[in-house]
Order: sequence, then structure tokens, then C-alpha cells
Amino acid sequence: MEVSIEAALVNVQTGPDTFDPDCPARVLLDHITSRWGVLILVALSSGTMRWGELRRWASGISEKMLAQTLRTLEADGLVLREQWPVVPPHVDYSLTDRGRELAALLLPLVEWINAAAG
Amino acid sequence: MEVSIEAALVNVQTGPDTFDPDCPARVLLDHITSRWGVLILVALSSGTMRWGELRRWASGISEKMLAQTLRTLEADGLVLREQWPVVPPHVDYSLTDRGRELAALLLPLVEWINAAAG
Repeated sequence: MEVSIEAALVNVQTGPDTFDPDCPARVLLDHITSRWGVLILVALSSGTMRWGELRRWASGISEKMLAQTLRTLEADGLVLREQWPVVPPHVDYSLTDRGRELAALLLPLVEWINAAAG
Repeated sequence: MEVSIEAALVNVQTGPDTFDPDCPARVLLDHITSRWGVLILVALSSGTMRWGELRRWASGISEKMLAQTLRTLEADGLVLREQWPVVPPHVDYSLTDRGRELAALLLPLVEWINAAAG
């Protein structure tokens, strides 16, 4: 996706607006740009994962924060939670189409951060 | 910048690693993905701004939070602060080359968020 700075700023000024504190776009910005939001979305871009796998990927996340981040991303329509009726319980997490779209924008960002810190 | 999911994940697993809580990449991730970090970098992508202009762009930011965000982005080498020896004091903020590189990755993200919230 190629977006010129000018085009993006025009859009920012006319449509839903992350710069407007009362706009839903601002709330979505907060969800998506949380440290754990980014890491979970990038982790799931490699495929479906279970809870334990996600915890290993996102080193340092607490059980509580992982649960909260997944609930938020699910409510935003970015992550799909599938629970299988087996014993012991088995829950899969994966990206929705919308989540995949977003992860494709986050990957180059994480890539850049890794290069910048290197 | 085109990065395949596979390539990005390989890089994530071998180089500096945003997923590693002890890696400088994780710290940079936190700075860059803070709500205000994103908004300030995107605002400055339209050109040099003074303090007051930045405050108007990033509606809802406090003086203290703006000062703190700008200091962090300056320390990360993303934002340039230029103070002119005039009365009253005149301070300009702009993106460094590195900051412009990063803003180019953040613009499509903000664009996507605005579209998703619309």
C-alpha cells in the first residue's frame, strides 16, 4: 500500500481522525499501538496459535495482560478466538482478514525497529 | 518497503528482537508505539512545527506529556529540536532522516486506522 504523506494528511483531516480525542479512530490507535497489541498481531501473522505459544512469543507478558490484549483485539474484529469442545480445553487464536491487513502494515514497522536497534 | 511475513519473522528471530524483553528493540517499540509518539511523528511528517502547532495537532495532549514525548523522540534520534536565540524564544521541531523513514511506515498505519474506524 503506497500512501503519500500529503494524501494521508488530507485523509486524516477530513475523515475519522486519530488526532481527534473523541473519535473512535483514537481508541483503535491506542489498542493497535499498545506494545502487546503490536506483538500479538505480529506473532499471529505467522499462523494460528494457542495460548501457551502466544505467551512464549510475547516474552514478559502476564497471563492477565495477555487475556486482556486478546479480548480487546477480538472485540476490534482483529483476532478470532476458537474454542474446541475437548478435554483439556483447546483454544486457538488467529487473525481475521482485517487483522491480517493490519499485521501486514505492522510487520515492516517491527522490522524497522529491529534494524534501528541493531 | 515490501517485507514478506516470513522474511520479517526470520529477521525477528535472528537479529535484535522486539519480542525479547531485554532487547533495546523492545524499548524502541514502546517509544514508537505510544499513542503520542505515533501522532507526533505523523504530525511532523507534514513539516517543521513549533510547540503550539504540535499541541493543536495532538488534541488532548498535556504540556507535560508533549514535552516528555518530544524528549524521548529526540533522544531516539527521530526528532530534531532547534532553538533560535530570539525573544520570545522560538523552538522548531522536525523529523530527522531516521524519523522520516519511520513516519513513512506509520502513515499507512494511521491511514488504515482511520479507514477502519470510518
